[in-house]
Amino acid sequence: MAGRGVEWRINVADGTSRELEAESRFGLQRFVSKVGGFFQRAWRIGVNEPKKSIHCVKVGVALSLVSLFYYMRPLYEGVGGNAMWAVMTVVVVFEYTVGATLSKCVNRATGTLLAGALGVGVHWVASQAGERFEPIILQTSVFLLATAATFSRFIPSIKARFDYGAMIFILTFSLISVSGYRVEKLFEMAHHRLSTIAIGTSICIITTIVFFPVWAGTELHNLITNNMDKLSDSLDGCVADYFSSNSQTSDKTLQGYKCALNSKAAEESLANFARWEPAHGKFNFGHPWLEYVKVGASLRSCAYCIEALNGSMNSKAKVPDVFKKHFGNFCVRLSNKSSAVLKELAVVMSTMKKPTKIDFMVEEMKSAVQELENALKSLSKQPVQTAEAKVGEVVTLVEVVPLVTVSSLLIEIAARTEKLAGAVNVVAEKAEFEAETAEEAKKGQKSKGGNKIGQEDEEDKAMKTLQKV
Amino acid sequence: MAGRGVEWRINVADGTSRELEAESRFGLQRFVSKVGGFFQRAWRIGVNEPKKSIHCVKVGVALSLVSLFYYMRPLYEGVGGNAMWAVMTVVVVFEYTVGATLSKCVNRATGTLLAGALGVGVHWVASQAGERFEPIILQTSVFLLATAATFSRFIPSIKARFDYGAMIFILTFSLISVSGYRVEKLFEMAHHRLSTIAIGTSICIITTIVFFPVWAGTELHNLITNNMDKLSDSLDGCVADYFSSNSQTSDKTLQGYKCALNSKAAEESLANFARWEPAHGKFNFGHPWLEYVKVGASLRSCAYCIEALNGSMNSKAKVPDVFKKHFGNFCVRLSNKSSAVLKELAVVMSTMKKPTKIDFMVEEMKSAVQELENALKSLSKQPVQTAEAKVGEVVTLVEVVPLVTVSSLLIEIAARTEKLAGAVNVVAEKAEFEAETAEEAKKGQKSKGGNKIGQEDEEDKAMKTLQKV
Repeated sequence: MAGRGVEWRINVADGTSRELEAESRFGLQRFVSKVGGFFQRAWRIGVNEPKKSIHCVKVGVALSLVSLFYYMRPLYEGVGGNAMWAVMTVVVVFEYTVGATLSKCVNRATGTLLAGALGVGVHWVASQAGERFEPIILQTSVFLLATAATFSRFIPSIKARFDYGAMIFILTFSLISVSGYRVEKLFEMAHHRLSTIAIGTSICIITTIVFFPVWAGTELHNLITNNMDKLSDSLDGCVADYFSSNSQTSDKTLQGYKCALNSKAAEESLANFARWEPAHGKFNFGHPWLEYVKVGASLRSCAYCIEALNGSMNSKAKVPDVFKKHFGNFCVRLSNKSSAVLKELAVVMSTMKKPTKIDFMVEEMKSAVQELENALKSLSKQPVQTAEAKVGEVVTLVEVVPLVTVSSLLIEIAARTEKLAGAVNVVAEKAEFEAETAEEAKKGQKSKGGNKIGQEDEEDKAMKTLQKV
Repeated sequence: MAGRGVEWRINVADGTSRELEAESRFGLQRFVSKVGGFFQRAWRIGVNEPKKSIHCVKVGVALSLVSLFYYMRPLYEGVGGNAMWAVMTVVVVFEYTVGATLSKCVNRATGTLLAGALGVGVHWVASQAGERFEPIILQTSVFLLATAATFSRFIPSIKARFDYGAMIFILTFSLISVSGYRVEKLFEMAHHRLSTIAIGTSICIITTIVFFPVWAGTELHNLITNNMDKLSDSLDGCVADYFSSNSQTSDKTLQGYKCALNSKAAEESLANFARWEPAHGKFNFGHPWLEYVKVGASLRSCAYCIEALNGSMNSKAKVPDVFKKHFGNFCVRLSNKSSAVLKELAVVMSTMKKPTKIDFMVEEMKSAVQELENALKSLSKQPVQTAEAKVGEVVTLVEVVPLVTVSSLLIEIAARTEKLAGAVNVVAEKAEFEAETAEEAKKGQKSKGGNKIGQEDEEDKAMKTLQKV
């Protein structure tokens, strides 16, 4: 038996022990490896996204702070022994981003206040109506208001911003209506509930803002600029891979556009939360967050096209090398221009400087489009003449179908990139992005290499003249 | 003054009254019209989606039921005056779909139970450690467990199914740990909390299942089949509009594919909820809901292509009518075949019958692809010859670029539709869709017209032979 490694035995009913069958041994191994994998994934989340780990510690800190209320007698008695509500508020209200936390705090406070006032009013009316009608009035009011408030949660504009408030409204109103207290005691209870909520929400707000705040606005900002970068890289990568056999872009880069495809929900909720946030970092209160959602939508429409481009590049049809080479130049040039525009838009968004080069780069992109269109035109009129091809050979259309498709998708992507530039321009205007200082502009030019400085200088001058006018 | 219609006056500080200025009058009008618009939209939601209105009434009913506890003395005293928790449970747990409600109920109960057991244990340990260490142990345990549980909410597999449970765990554990009770009283409190939660959840479950239940599974099922239908219609519509000047498809139909683009989040959350649901209607417990998510993803990849197709159809480049006519036949034929496959897949999904015709239809679609490819091939070799075109005219490539793009996108859409058919097949196998009865098969053939009966009979026979083997 030695030499067979670890042995697995179980006792069976007849008193003997026998080896575990292979299957269940694998079962146990599988379970262990599953659990191991789970903790590995968890560890990776913790290491790769330290912000999330910090958030967890912050929740612990906030709860420890609020639980101090139980240990300090005067505080505990000040809220009539209802410190429980403060703990509850912290647990329920503390969210990952500042905006989400603020939104929940405001919703909770407003919902409680409104429902409390209404509840006390209905209670008073019911108590005036006599003992027979009191429960009927109370029950009916709970039924009607719960139905109406639930319905309001289906209305998109309310759902986006006040969903939690509506729920708290129903909760508080039901609790007050059905509780058997007299009105005088109700006031006391309302007072306690409000003060505990105030304590809970202030602890949450202070903890979330003071220690490593995660602003929904900044997250949205980074999400959009990262997506632009990724889109730019994957556009460049997939066109380069298609036309050049020695280019090898990593799968991660190629699939980068998928992040943009799937971030609609995240963008919208972040934008909704960002609207609750005070001025922070580079962003003022009232920063045009909803415009960011439009930029995101525009970015997504580019991503759809890149998805289709990827699909048509993977098609089986083979294109003769000679055409691939001839067309490749124009296609790669256009994709470089488009991705450069995307990259520059990402820079504009992240530095929040007025876009000075974009118009020029868009023009360059358009001229690349024109060149590609000319190449398409010339293809059938003048047969391609290169060393490899027989001179005078006529192109058969079917050979270049994939190329034509790739070209027109690239042209479509260029058109959509232009629209995206427009959307970014709107953000730049509404958010009043600063103009680049002369030094920064020079630095930018140097880092781009010397070949275009003349042109860009003219462009810059023209822009400055325009700004003065 | 008569004849000027309604007049708006306000009293100003100097005692005179003056007419409201135009602007503020417009302001008031705008406010009124805004409020009116809000209620109109709300009314439309109520009328168009009666299920949502019914849900609101159900919430009212559940709350009325649970509030009866306050009026029945023995019930009220049975839970030690803690009926409040039952009301709270109903408000927080009652969701739109049965699956979401069940998921929240299970999460709430499990979270409370686990945290309760752990809380009592920690309390006992702390009480043994002496008065000095007690608060330290309690505080530390709250901090550590809150941090760990919050972190678990970031792990995708836990977030999808147990997010609410983790929150309730933190809540209950903190409440128990910090409350100043002795252990004996804790047991009583835990008992009351558990029984009130049991009461609340049972009222929710009964109300949600007995009165007009909204099953997450059924919703997911309908969402997917509706999206297939919409995709099919908008594919048909946009190709028909492009190639025929007298075809006018409504914008709503054309934009139908956008529903599929944006339903990823909805599909995933519905699938997660559907997994909690018991057998209902045509669905058993353990129905392969996660496969539906894959079908949805496959459907979305078709939708991306249709989006790109729409984009390239709106391009400015004009195609000579003669080519449009020549190509139109093949393109329309292919798009008809693809949309027919989509329609049939929708029928398969919604009737849950074994797909018998799909393989045949996919073959038809493939032959349409082949025909279109042949047409592309022939175009450059044999110049198009029609009555309108000069005989022998050579096609210049640039004139047909948009057509070539549309064609290859249609071919790509066909390829993706085939993959979708594969995904639907997997669902059909895993969910053990029933075979069509002979009568149903006949009915289906009749409704399709007589021209293909022979072929389909053979197909059916072949399928039946295969199934017997």
